[in-house]
Amino acid sequence: MKVGFIGLGRMGRAMSRSLLRGGHDVVVYNRTPEKAAELAEAGARVAQSIAESCEGSEAVMTMVANDEALEEVTSQLRESLPAGTVPVAMGTHGVGAIKAVAAAHAEAGQPFVAAPVLGRPEAAEEGALGIVPGGPAEAVERCLPLFEAMGKRTFRAGELPESASAIKLANNFVLGCAIEAIGEGMALVRKYDVDPQVFHEVLTEGLFAGPAYNTYGRIISAEDYDHVGFTVELALKDANLILAAADLARLPLPSANVYRDRLLTAMAEGDDQKDWAIMARVQARSGGLE
Amino acid sequence: MKVGFIGLGRMGRAMSRSLLRGGHDVVVYNRTPEKAAELAEAGARVAQSIAESCEGSEAVMTMVANDEALEEVTSQLRESLPAGTVPVAMGTHGVGAIKAVAAAHAEAGQPFVAAPVLGRPEAAEEGALGIVPGGPAEAVERCLPLFEAMGKRTFRAGELPESASAIKLANNFVLGCAIEAIGEGMALVRKYDVDPQVFHEVLTEGLFAGPAYNTYGRIISAEDYDHVGFTVELALKDANLILAAADLARLPLPSANVYRDRLLTAMAEGDDQKDWAIMARVQARSGGLE
Amino acid sequence: MKVGFIGLGRMGRAMSRSLLRGGHDVVVYNRTPEKAAELAEAGARVAQSIAESCEGSEAVMTMVANDEALEEVTSQLRESLPAGTVPVAMGTHGVGAIKAVAAAHAEAGQPFVAAPVLGRPEAAEEGALGIVPGGPAEAVERCLPLFEAMGKRTFRAGELPESASAIKLANNFVLGCAIEAIGEGMALVRKYDVDPQVFHEVLTEGLFAGPAYNTYGRIISAEDYDHVGFTVELALKDANLILAAADLARLPLPSANVYRDRLLTAMAEGDDQKDWAIMARVQARSGGLE
Amino acid sequence: MKVGFIGLGRMGRAMSRSLLRGGHDVVVYNRTPEKAAELAEAGARVAQSIAESCEGSEAVMTMVANDEALEEVTSQLRESLPAGTVPVAMGTHGVGAIKAVAAAHAEAGQPFVAAPVLGRPEAAEEGALGIVPGGPAEAVERCLPLFEAMGKRTFRAGELPESASAIKLANNFVLGCAIEAIGEGMALVRKYDVDPQVFHEVLTEGLFAGPAYNTYGRIISAEDYDHVGFTVELALKDANLILAAADLARLPLPSANVYRDRLLTAMAEGDDQKDWAIMARVQARSGGLE
Repeated sequence: MKVGFIGLGRMGRAMSRSLLRGGHDVVVYNRTPEKAAELAEAGARVAQSIAESCEGSEAVMTMVANDEALEEVTSQLRESLPAGTVPVAMGTHGVGAIKAVAAAHAEAGQPFVAAPVLGRPEAAEEGALGIVPGGPAEAVERCLPLFEAMGKRTFRAGELPESASAIKLANNFVLGCAIEAIGEGMALVRKYDVDPQVFHEVLTEGLFAGPAYNTYGRIISAEDYDHVGFTVELALKDANLILAAADLARLPLPSANVYRDRLLTAMAEGDDQKDWAIMARVQARSGGLE
Repeated sequence: MKVGFIGLGRMGRAMSRSLLRGGHDVVVYNRTPEKAAELAEAGARVAQSIAESCEGSEAVMTMVANDEALEEVTSQLRESLPAGTVPVAMGTHGVGAIKAVAAAHAEAGQPFVAAPVLGRPEAAEEGALGIVPGGPAEAVERCLPLFEAMGKRTFRAGELPESASAIKLANNFVLGCAIEAIGEGMALVRKYDVDPQVFHEVLTEGLFAGPAYNTYGRIISAEDYDHVGFTVELALKDANLILAAADLARLPLPSANVYRDRLLTAMAEGDDQKDWAIMARVQARSGGLE
Repeated sequence: MKVGFIGLGRMGRAMSRSLLRGGHDVVVYNRTPEKAAELAEAGARVAQSIAESCEGSEAVMTMVANDEALEEVTSQLRESLPAGTVPVAMGTHGVGAIKAVAAAHAEAGQPFVAAPVLGRPEAAEEGALGIVPGGPAEAVERCLPLFEAMGKRTFRAGELPESASAIKLANNFVLGCAIEAIGEGMALVRKYDVDPQVFHEVLTEGLFAGPAYNTYGRIISAEDYDHVGFTVELALKDANLILAAADLARLPLPSANVYRDRLLTAMAEGDDQKDWAIMARVQARSGGLE
Repeated sequence: MKVGFIGLGRMGRAMSRSLLRGGHDVVVYNRTPEKAAELAEAGARVAQSIAESCEGSEAVMTMVANDEALEEVTSQLRESLPAGTVPVAMGTHGVGAIKAVAAAHAEAGQPFVAAPVLGRPEAAEEGALGIVPGGPAEAVERCLPLFEAMGKRTFRAGELPESASAIKLANNFVLGCAIEAIGEGMALVRKYDVDPQVFHEVLTEGLFAGPAYNTYGRIISAEDYDHVGFTVELALKDANLILAAADLARLPLPSANVYRDRLLTAMAEGDDQKDWAIMARVQARSGGLE
């Protein structure tokens, strides 16, 4: 398929390469053109404008950093999309922004798909993302070959783009809660002279196998907050998107409040660029542990 | 080894059978003698008193329902234990009770091991428990053949019995947080028209593989609170033990507060005998979902 | 003094009348002109535009409903203000909006004062508001005669307009917490068969004299949520401004989380137009009380 | 009236003196007899035993430090009370203990009144306490002259002693929430460069007149945690009584969780003997303020 790809950060570049490996014809665009160069080498065509990335494409994907960027790109995109081309937003966005973007495209008679992705950059490099498309069934259907090139599994969120956004945010929320719980539990056992590594094993060899507890249990038991997978700052932005989604839906999320407060304290202590697992240190300190 | 076993509830019977299967010589005792009968058939000797269960035993294990029962049994046990016999408390007890029992035995010159177990009755039947012994190394060492007969993995908590208790409580705490998080996340996606089953798949095929999210994600997405693994009432008792352990250690556990409040609401609504995953329904209702 | 006044809702009309009673020369403006009519009768001149309200005025006050309205008015105001005229924002605004508006005026070389008010419409009618000006001392000084006409007490917030905004929001926050605490305490005593009226007396004749506990204790003990002083919907908007101010400052406010969650449940239950004291009913229901 | 008084701590001595001033015939008893001496000078008779304090008394009041002490005194008291004499517990006790004590007296055919008091030792010295009796109406009635001697106001809790206990605990709870709210609000305004003293004035000259906000607003704005009215340690004991009362009644109290967590952090930081208003410093630090 011919596909446009806008937004060439670390995730966007990896996803574009997956599309190329999958045999698709990819036209990339990035506001700062330098990042496009390495993709040209890998076989992508480089567009000079958003409009150019749309020409002849069956779908145009965006992978941009935040809601403001998405809204900006969308306003150009909706002017340039050929009839029948599907715009697909693959970043992590708030449900408010996704609804606004969907409405803007709808006004222009354009179907819109939100397809946020699950997985770290490493998974993106290997084409092993989880992909969560939400939008009109026919539009989603047409994009499936693209999703297959980028991911190992597609989870259909339903007909509403914001459903996909909600799943992505809720998944991140559950992860934030898990990190907070590990941090609280770890502080509790440390108070009773337990080696953190033993508690990590109890969790991960028992009820809590799987990547979340393995990764964050290890980070927290080793207090290894300088190898950064996801910064406190980004996690706070994410937590605010989660709480905004809950607010729009009139839903209390008390566990989100708990870990967002940890992130605020970490920010206040100057740890905005550390890994967000540092929430566990905030917890430990609240009990006088250091 | 010759071993006494006091407390023949469902867990205690299954653990006694595992000991018998492992070739150990087991003397069982239960306050109400009927429950001992089936173990006699399986090869156990039945003691008529706590004192009798101690005679000639290298270790005497207790698996009783709560701290009060443990303290009662302990006061008899310490009068009856032969020199060198190790008392082993295998139930889920508060750190305060475990410290008091350890002190009582220490006064009588008796080493004491707390060895709470991880796993449901099914795991106990299969000899597949996790066992978390804490206590003097030499005493723990002597009990290892018994633990091996009952479990598939032993996690050494260290020299303090209360360390073992803290690990068990912290493990249950992390599980409570996971259930609460699934409930909150599930309510969030339901607000955006997502099929709960899809969110369950996203969690368990992604970051949250492992029994906790599989089991409780399924229960919550199916709202199947009548098949009861662990009642709201027991979960509240447990949550109170967790918060008491944190209180003794001067440690805030905000996530425990969150899910304990859910359990209180479930109790208030008359759901004390439902599965504790019903916390998710309390959450859903707080956002007007039913 | 000659003063422009923009925004003639219930509060704005009352404040304009206070200015007129104080002998000031008031030019009023409202987007929908009908509301200006009654002020014309009271002696005000009616401007046809924001620009006209500025002509010859020493200060131009705004009392508009939300941050969006303030930002809109500001963009016109900064084009129209004569040199030396002080723009004064008297509504309840977020610190983010106030900082943005201050910056916009600063760019145009205009000093800017935020002067949010304390008190209900009744207090505004009587010229009995509390007024909390923040901004350059010289600009605040010049407005004092106007504040004196509208209020019984002026609290100087300091040189920063956002300081005034923070005080106003923090005052509302403390009130929200008080309502939540009354609600929780009332539910607790009701559980032990106490007449709510008795608890109301204990509070207000003891440690908690003063309007907040008198007013809301009465409303809550009578469950009188249909006489609306401040709606759930406005209170939620307010709570979000408070949490946004805390977020910008990197500060956890756990008590704000608690009562915001109550408001969300009240919204979800369709009570958005009830008095926000209905938080107490959400609390009571969480314990099975009705 | 002739009245026994057991428990001569600071509060008990002050209350006994009020009874003497009111013309009552007071027989005092204290476990450590030294404290009784000063009351002998003031006209009290000194009993050598609990039994002696009961002889001929129409009521016997206790003012002891905690639930354990009350239960201990009660077991002796119920053996010694003449027929018709009313035992009155005036300390701050848990609802569980009060119910147990009431049941013990009921078994012995003795009516029982719980009458916790509102006010600091200074108020007790001046006979200006609030008194909250709960118990059988006839028994309460007979004690009214005694209450009038000690207090300026009596609040009738109803027929159940535990109702009185619940009111006392709920009153303390509302105070704890107020302190927490002042602390959070103060931290918020400090983040925006507001002089804490100004915020204190805004609160207390506006919605929050009355002793609670005056006293604690002053302490917190001055960070004066070394003049101790009520220690962190006692406040934590109190918070646990409050949460236990809520637990027994199956009621979540999220605001109690919030401030109890503050007290735990203060304890963990070694501030157990500071004034409990130091919760505000824990809050400030959670936002990086010092």
